[in-house]
Amino acid sequence: MEEERADRCARLFAEASRDGVSSHGLNRFPRFLRAIGRGVVDVHARARCVGGHGALERWDGRGGPGNLNAHDAMARAIALGREHGIGCVALANTNHWMRGGSYGWQAADAGLIGICWTNTMPNLPPWGATDPRVGNNPLVVAVPRPDGHVVVDMAMSQFSMGALEAYRARGDALPVVGGYDEAGELTRDPAAIEASRRLLPIGFWKGSGLAVTLDLVAAILSGGRATHEIPADPELEAGLSQAFIAIDPTGADAGLVDRVIAHLHAGDGEVRYPGERTLETRNRNMREGVPVDPAIWRDVQARAAG
Amino acid sequence: MEEERADRCARLFAEASRDGVSSHGLNRFPRFLRAIGRGVVDVHARARCVGGHGALERWDGRGGPGNLNAHDAMARAIALGREHGIGCVALANTNHWMRGGSYGWQAADAGLIGICWTNTMPNLPPWGATDPRVGNNPLVVAVPRPDGHVVVDMAMSQFSMGALEAYRARGDALPVVGGYDEAGELTRDPAAIEASRRLLPIGFWKGSGLAVTLDLVAAILSGGRATHEIPADPELEAGLSQAFIAIDPTGADAGLVDRVIAHLHAGDGEVRYPGERTLETRNRNMREGVPVDPAIWRDVQARAAG
Repeated sequence: MEEERADRCARLFAEASRDGVSSHGLNRFPRFLRAIGRGVVDVHARARCVGGHGALERWDGRGGPGNLNAHDAMARAIALGREHGIGCVALANTNHWMRGGSYGWQAADAGLIGICWTNTMPNLPPWGATDPRVGNNPLVVAVPRPDGHVVVDMAMSQFSMGALEAYRARGDALPVVGGYDEAGELTRDPAAIEASRRLLPIGFWKGSGLAVTLDLVAAILSGGRATHEIPADPELEAGLSQAFIAIDPTGADAGLVDRVIAHLHAGDGEVRYPGERTLETRNRNMREGVPVDPAIWRDVQARAAG
Repeated sequence: MEEERADRCARLFAEASRDGVSSHGLNRFPRFLRAIGRGVVDVHARARCVGGHGALERWDGRGGPGNLNAHDAMARAIALGREHGIGCVALANTNHWMRGGSYGWQAADAGLIGICWTNTMPNLPPWGATDPRVGNNPLVVAVPRPDGHVVVDMAMSQFSMGALEAYRARGDALPVVGGYDEAGELTRDPAAIEASRRLLPIGFWKGSGLAVTLDLVAAILSGGRATHEIPADPELEAGLSQAFIAIDPTGADAGLVDRVIAHLHAGDGEVRYPGERTLETRNRNMREGVPVDPAIWRDVQARAAG
């Protein structure tokens, strides 16, 4: 891997852990190495433009590292957005982008509004069914702000399989219902949902419908695979389709975002704006150090030394 | 009102009823007339372009009829999308767009992917609070398909206030939890949620965060009002901000959407694609006639005669 790409790939993993998303940071790195070993990820492949016109481009990810492909695609969407006001890159044949929020922060760091999403392997039953037939297709929307960007990074399932696993390992119930048990009843028991594989879409029929539509838009524009054509195995998931949109808000009312956040913070309850907790975690970890799982850290260090 | 605009305005109301969304069709027409009477809606005002560059334009709705402004904005986004691959019109100072799905069907009828959303008056408590401080900001995503477009049209609350009212009037419980009662417990009782005004965002914290972010993007790009600056009274709600994006999928794999729908229809359960029920209702109503509320129909007929 070229040094610049290796650095950037490592940085994207490290930044996910720094921001508190270790599930797609350090903790995901061993699986990324296995994907390279299996040939799912080709570290030498670079995404390239294969079509489009004007402010819309179609890119082929060629099975390269998912985070580098996504970062390259959003970088190009940003350039198109600066040139045309709005730009879009649709990316086919790519791999898991790790933390989706990374590309929202990337657009916002550049001063643009970023909207991006990915499809996934089938891991969510559509509304009305019990078997996983749609993806949980994370959606990211980011708005730039000097004192901290507003970034939504949300999958279409209420919880990811990884989140269910983490709650179960801690012996905790989910804070809200997250899916169905084998009897078809809504439950907060993570183990029951892992057993049934019936995760709940956000908003019941609404998240299910949005997941279907995001999959269609990404696959149509990129010329890539739709969810049902993607291998339904986390170790073999490949050939994803993604969309990256960047919009240039130059000339916008500079104080608007702060006013909206001030209004959210006023009144009753403890309300956070999307991205607020991420920034708090980032700042704390930059002061105190980024916590790592010691076993995974030793494993990665040993491979680096080897 | 000029004849073409009056015809188009009436058609958009009628199509909502035809498609089974009478809450934003005929049943909403009396309130629209009241808004004209109060000066909230200026029937003579036309939206016009006031800024932007390339594929991104900023429009001022000047307090005109919300459905005509939205229809004009999406028509311009479609033209920009055809020219640049992707186009965006951000619309400020507009009024309620009635059925959001109309502008998704409009883009898809033109052969383009349509993405649009609106902000609203504050009507949804953000996650962590009990008072309505964010809008339920409906989001529409539409994908063209010869045998029937795929169209998601979803507010960020699990149910609208109008839906709660309809369930209560029928004496029915909600099919899933829709908000909190006065004691702060999740409930399927529509009257309890109407009393507390604590509607549930889709996906709990997720819909709340997405609502905040959609509001920001629409208000920033259009230079218009954010939700907390909009009068919190359904009769006076005005000065909305909206975003319309159209993407040209020319050259896309023509069979992809049908394959995805076939996969959704295969397997267990009864799964509909988004927009499927709308099309069934439309076809039935075009054969058998569009059902109307007799009292509202007589009222509108009397006003037309008067």
